[in-house]
Amino acid sequence: MWRQAEIEIATRGRGFHQLTTELEAQLRGCGIRIGLCHLFLRHTSASLAITENADPEVRRDLERFAQRLAPDGDPLFRHDAEGADDMPAHVRSLVLGCELTVPIRDGALGLGTWQGIYLWEHRTGAMRRRILVTLSGEV
Amino acid sequence: MWRQAEIEIATRGRGFHQLTTELEAQLRGCGIRIGLCHLFLRHTSASLAITENADPEVRRDLERFAQRLAPDGDPLFRHDAEGADDMPAHVRSLVLGCELTVPIRDGALGLGTWQGIYLWEHRTGAMRRRILVTLSGEV
Amino acid sequence: MWRQAEIEIATRGRGFHQLTTELEAQLRGCGIRIGLCHLFLRHTSASLAITENADPEVRRDLERFAQRLAPDGDPLFRHDAEGADDMPAHVRSLVLGCELTVPIRDGALGLGTWQGIYLWEHRTGAMRRRILVTLSGEV
Repeated sequence: MWRQAEIEIATRGRGFHQLTTELEAQLRGCGIRIGLCHLFLRHTSASLAITENADPEVRRDLERFAQRLAPDGDPLFRHDAEGADDMPAHVRSLVLGCELTVPIRDGALGLGTWQGIYLWEHRTGAMRRRILVTLSGEV
Repeated sequence: MWRQAEIEIATRGRGFHQLTTELEAQLRGCGIRIGLCHLFLRHTSASLAITENADPEVRRDLERFAQRLAPDGDPLFRHDAEGADDMPAHVRSLVLGCELTVPIRDGALGLGTWQGIYLWEHRTGAMRRRILVTLSGEV
Repeated sequence: MWRQAEIEIATRGRGFHQLTTELEAQLRGCGIRIGLCHLFLRHTSASLAITENADPEVRRDLERFAQRLAPDGDPLFRHDAEGADDMPAHVRSLVLGCELTVPIRDGALGLGTWQGIYLWEHRTGAMRRRILVTLSGEV
């Protein structure tokens, strides 16, 4: 069984948007018991990430880490058509990835207790982001 | 055809645990000839990794690299509820990833000659780690 | 429906090889409308990457970033059996990954407008690289 849907998210600068709740809702509707949920972010300046879902300080620390890894306005970079955060956003997107597969078990996402699924915006301005969700498995 | 199983691994501090042998055994039992083997680590402070399987010095170099990327006790981080290795473990898990898909070809993992699949523990203490394995394909 | 094929690419030192065109051609031949296209690079010193497909300066900046992250001849590393670029190539391969899943939608890759799929060679010499492509989905 195959099912596909697109999620659209409006971001307002750098930060994490929780996706777990919306994905669980989509899963309940489709009837798949065992399978895979694949997420594909159709952009090269944001990421999909699985990380700790309890303490928001973890996500702030991850943002600090990403800023150290590829600082805005880094003199290493020449591509800056859209500003000082342009190339750092591409680097973060590449290193952290734009696609994820999460298993479906007993009709729900097989996440561990402390795992959350997030869209991580890397641009400093407001953006519209589209995620293509592909569900496959057996009913 | 879909098959799902959970592997549990007891780790004793930082290091690599080879998973290839166990996965090959699971594959032989299920009869899938062409398909995908998806691995999902249900934790946010360890990783799944595919890397060189011959010289153990490569894995020691990777561990050195990870310690340089996000050192224990790094003053950049504020989240340290579980100690100096807490936030560095979350960073490594995010950058290196907690899920992998490996193709099944002729009923075996389609790995290259020098590729091994590993659980990489990022915490310094002993942990119990669970990996959800989802096999799909045609017999 | 399942389909599997191997692509072989001859690289000539560090750089990006576009894969999107070849993958789209394979897709047109197989008839899958909704599904997943999984790519698996059978090597530990090159990567598969999705990144910006328009300005080649972006890919040159990514190469500069990778060289800063793990410089050739980095004194941190001990494994150098194949030269100064040996261990840096393993690090890049690990951090950037050797496998990707891209959704199939309406019989084509569900990429965003600015996304391209690339093989990224990390060794400085000429290499032969094999990618195992696994397509699954419904016709």
